[in-house]
Amino acid sequence: MKNVPFKGIIAYPITPFDDHEKVNIPLFKHLVERLITSGSHGLAPLGSTGVMPYLSDEEKEAVTEATIEQVKGRIPTLVGVSNLTTEKTIHHARFAEKAGADAVMIIPMSYWKLTDDEIVAHYDAVAGKISIPIMAYNNPATSGVDMSPALLKRLFEIPNVTMIKESSGDVQRMHYLRRELGEDVAFYNGSNPLALAAFSAGARGWCTAAPNLIPELNISLYNAVEEGNLGKAKDIFYQQFDLLKFIVSKGLPRAVKAGLSILGEDGGSLRSPLQPLIESESEELKKILSGLR
Amino acid sequence: MKNVPFKGIIAYPITPFDDHEKVNIPLFKHLVERLITSGSHGLAPLGSTGVMPYLSDEEKEAVTEATIEQVKGRIPTLVGVSNLTTEKTIHHARFAEKAGADAVMIIPMSYWKLTDDEIVAHYDAVAGKISIPIMAYNNPATSGVDMSPALLKRLFEIPNVTMIKESSGDVQRMHYLRRELGEDVAFYNGSNPLALAAFSAGARGWCTAAPNLIPELNISLYNAVEEGNLGKAKDIFYQQFDLLKFIVSKGLPRAVKAGLSILGEDGGSLRSPLQPLIESESEELKKILSGLR
Amino acid sequence: MKNVPFKGIIAYPITPFDDHEKVNIPLFKHLVERLITSGSHGLAPLGSTGVMPYLSDEEKEAVTEATIEQVKGRIPTLVGVSNLTTEKTIHHARFAEKAGADAVMIIPMSYWKLTDDEIVAHYDAVAGKISIPIMAYNNPATSGVDMSPALLKRLFEIPNVTMIKESSGDVQRMHYLRRELGEDVAFYNGSNPLALAAFSAGARGWCTAAPNLIPELNISLYNAVEEGNLGKAKDIFYQQFDLLKFIVSKGLPRAVKAGLSILGEDGGSLRSPLQPLIESESEELKKILSGLR
Amino acid sequence: MKNVPFKGIIAYPITPFDDHEKVNIPLFKHLVERLITSGSHGLAPLGSTGVMPYLSDEEKEAVTEATIEQVKGRIPTLVGVSNLTTEKTIHHARFAEKAGADAVMIIPMSYWKLTDDEIVAHYDAVAGKISIPIMAYNNPATSGVDMSPALLKRLFEIPNVTMIKESSGDVQRMHYLRRELGEDVAFYNGSNPLALAAFSAGARGWCTAAPNLIPELNISLYNAVEEGNLGKAKDIFYQQFDLLKFIVSKGLPRAVKAGLSILGEDGGSLRSPLQPLIESESEELKKILSGLR
Repeated sequence: MKNVPFKGIIAYPITPFDDHEKVNIPLFKHLVERLITSGSHGLAPLGSTGVMPYLSDEEKEAVTEATIEQVKGRIPTLVGVSNLTTEKTIHHARFAEKAGADAVMIIPMSYWKLTDDEIVAHYDAVAGKISIPIMAYNNPATSGVDMSPALLKRLFEIPNVTMIKESSGDVQRMHYLRRELGEDVAFYNGSNPLALAAFSAGARGWCTAAPNLIPELNISLYNAVEEGNLGKAKDIFYQQFDLLKFIVSKGLPRAVKAGLSILGEDGGSLRSPLQPLIESESEELKKILSGLR
Repeated sequence: MKNVPFKGIIAYPITPFDDHEKVNIPLFKHLVERLITSGSHGLAPLGSTGVMPYLSDEEKEAVTEATIEQVKGRIPTLVGVSNLTTEKTIHHARFAEKAGADAVMIIPMSYWKLTDDEIVAHYDAVAGKISIPIMAYNNPATSGVDMSPALLKRLFEIPNVTMIKESSGDVQRMHYLRRELGEDVAFYNGSNPLALAAFSAGARGWCTAAPNLIPELNISLYNAVEEGNLGKAKDIFYQQFDLLKFIVSKGLPRAVKAGLSILGEDGGSLRSPLQPLIESESEELKKILSGLR
Repeated sequence: MKNVPFKGIIAYPITPFDDHEKVNIPLFKHLVERLITSGSHGLAPLGSTGVMPYLSDEEKEAVTEATIEQVKGRIPTLVGVSNLTTEKTIHHARFAEKAGADAVMIIPMSYWKLTDDEIVAHYDAVAGKISIPIMAYNNPATSGVDMSPALLKRLFEIPNVTMIKESSGDVQRMHYLRRELGEDVAFYNGSNPLALAAFSAGARGWCTAAPNLIPELNISLYNAVEEGNLGKAKDIFYQQFDLLKFIVSKGLPRAVKAGLSILGEDGGSLRSPLQPLIESESEELKKILSGLR
Repeated sequence: MKNVPFKGIIAYPITPFDDHEKVNIPLFKHLVERLITSGSHGLAPLGSTGVMPYLSDEEKEAVTEATIEQVKGRIPTLVGVSNLTTEKTIHHARFAEKAGADAVMIIPMSYWKLTDDEIVAHYDAVAGKISIPIMAYNNPATSGVDMSPALLKRLFEIPNVTMIKESSGDVQRMHYLRRELGEDVAFYNGSNPLALAAFSAGARGWCTAAPNLIPELNISLYNAVEEGNLGKAKDIFYQQFDLLKFIVSKGLPRAVKAGLSILGEDGGSLRSPLQPLIESESEELKKILSGLR
């Protein structure tokens, strides 16, 4: 598909911090490498999982460069460049392109709820300044604005807006997207607990932080779907459902960090005000992960 | 499965009225016959589609008897007996059993929001007075109370509460049911636009008014799921998605009646305050149905 | 004001049952008498507090007649006659008028969500069959339909629809009513915890079950508002706020019955599935009531 | 009241931009002067109205300094210093204190929903680094987290957290605050359309952008409340209700800028992606403002 570089499992690394809450780039690279060698089909730094909104401009740029360096073109990269202002979004999108990203992801962040026209103008302004494709990201819980299928259709008239990530949590939305934008629309699921329903509805990929902890199960689910084997897909999905629910309910950066530690990996520190899971939560996660081996 | 008489497509007939807004039993029987001969696997009179809450006790009894007479044991029957008071629910449940129903469906109607203990006592009181199985029905939008998987687990300790119909519209709920009640829990989907997602999640059947209008598509979807063929299931589902959305958004009794008329069938009158679809709505439905032939 | 017989505190009696869950008419009359002698300005049987939807037609009629007999014209009466079907609503409205009610209250009950046109036709059909005034009641949580100020304006074109009871729980709605229907619109507050805000916004009366337990405080609040004394009104309101929140959160029939018992009065039994408050809840209520003496 | 420098109308200036979307400090000072001379009792730069989240650190600092310079101690100042990270919040809070602010306002911004413990630690960390008082701001729609009265009580154990701004839009919340934190709790209303209800409930002040357009009406409402004159307060409130609804529904920065232009004042430009009101919206605002003269 033209200008649609992603298919399958798109993995989201966390951004680890050191003891002084500074970004730990070497550890970040190590975590990226884990995601690649365990089979992820795409890599997406600076997402919600990567606490992008908590980083300074310089830190975002360092993470972008570290990603490209580490991935070395083995799989496509999708860099988060969303910002409240149009000017800053352009800045980060251009940086990502120059650094070598395959695509950028943009959610219409909106402290003040944006009108449809403002959203179109925002994407249009950014798209005009870069030539790599854009994944439009809909997540009302995070952005405060719910982009309707009709609005997404308008965005798709911009040549390099070619992909949609849907995280509204409503599987019906995916049905609407197909109806509004055609059977071949490249939409990706961003709601972990809806992974099976979304693939059943035709999602081209799954944007997820889960491969930090259970890459084999994530990839097996995708493979079963590719085979068209519903029974197998269902069994594999139910094996990972508890883990998916857990990491979403506790907040992905906190949960992934705790899970890495349980798996014997270093996940670094969090940046305040985010704090680690409390003991009882970690215990619950340990049980879920043990049950999966 | 013990005491679980349903699997597949459970069809919901409307209750047709004559020009004086009296129940038209002969027409009702004709509509029931259509559902049977077009292949439905179960039949459920006195549901929401059958405007049960708008009927008098005598009318409910007449509809129950007419159903059993017409079905003649060819497929299992599921009779709606829900009522605001426990006493009336018992009355209708006993009537249905005596008339020959295979099972009854009960939703915890609640003008005053019921506590979990009140709901358990309600089901327990009814279950103790009949020996046929009960399908517990969760539909917060209609009943005003959302029965959690934990509450449903309590209900399942009552011997003849053996089935669950889930219409909360959240496919994740079905995942929780399986986790809480075991892989073999007999749950049925009551949310039309979620048909594919629910079958993918393991629903044993689909409670739906759609077979009044598109029985072949409903049954084909079920068959594709039984074959485990995800691609085929997806294609068949998308064919009927617009129709499913339409009938839900307009209200099932109104939409089914209008659809029957478009198909050249008599759907009778509605009971006030319900009124027929307006012209433009019927035109929209006509287009959707034409597209399906 | 023409055809607007109510102002001030409109008290809602519970419907008490005997040990066999039959309506206890003598006890009902006693409870009505308490409300009158303690100073209520109007009386409204067969409301939500009076568990109207749980009663048979005969029981509703008996309660209507008992009310008129007991009140003997001392204060105006407002009888609840809402029903899912238009035919039954007409039946009960005519009965109430013949029995001597001063007005009837009608909420658009809607198992199937009604369209605006259906709601207007429903009120119109009922209004045409009686000559006493109608209070239109908006309570989305109970009826499943939220009547907009614009719809209420349409209803007000029906000559004997002259009053509005607002229970949407949003005080802004009252501001909209005034804007849409004029400064003199006769609107009443049905949300207990909003009593002060509603009076501040210009509500003509307060429809409440609280006078079963704390009539002096309810009436004092109204008097302070009539005097235009905001500071006094605020003090009196805050004294009763905890009690108002409690009775709403526990369900009015359950809470009023428990409160009567604490006050040494007989509130009768409830009808299943409704059950009495549990011990700890009654204790909480006892503390709140003790604090008010 | 100790450490509670605000009472009455706390006015929120917009942050105006020039044609290149740079902050226009001289125009900002002029707009601040207008708010002071028209009688506001307090001044709050860098709020939502002032598009604080869209500004760089340097711009926030320039706006802070310009405010203090212009106000010259005539009325107390409340500077917004909220940030996603604790470190940055501390930075801005210290800057505001050094610049001479009387207090700072902090909302728990939360891309990742914060736990109660994280929120307490966040406020605690900031409060420990400054000695001026903090107003804790609850606005679930903006911050994504709803601080319960119980949580606010925990925050009040921090010595210099002394004030609450409530913008949840639920007037009952103010009743709960009084119950949880005592009659003398210093709470302020941040929901414009609830101004009357909030003052009736005992709010000490009203945080609002309305004085940019209708300062006399805002101040008159406060004065009527101070006199305890409910009738007068109601009349004055209803005069401004349409304007309050309008500016909230269109977004405060957009609406205030358009209103200033209608009043013959320069409001500067907006920063993209925010765009001016469209023509029909400006016309509607013009009508509302004309009706108020």
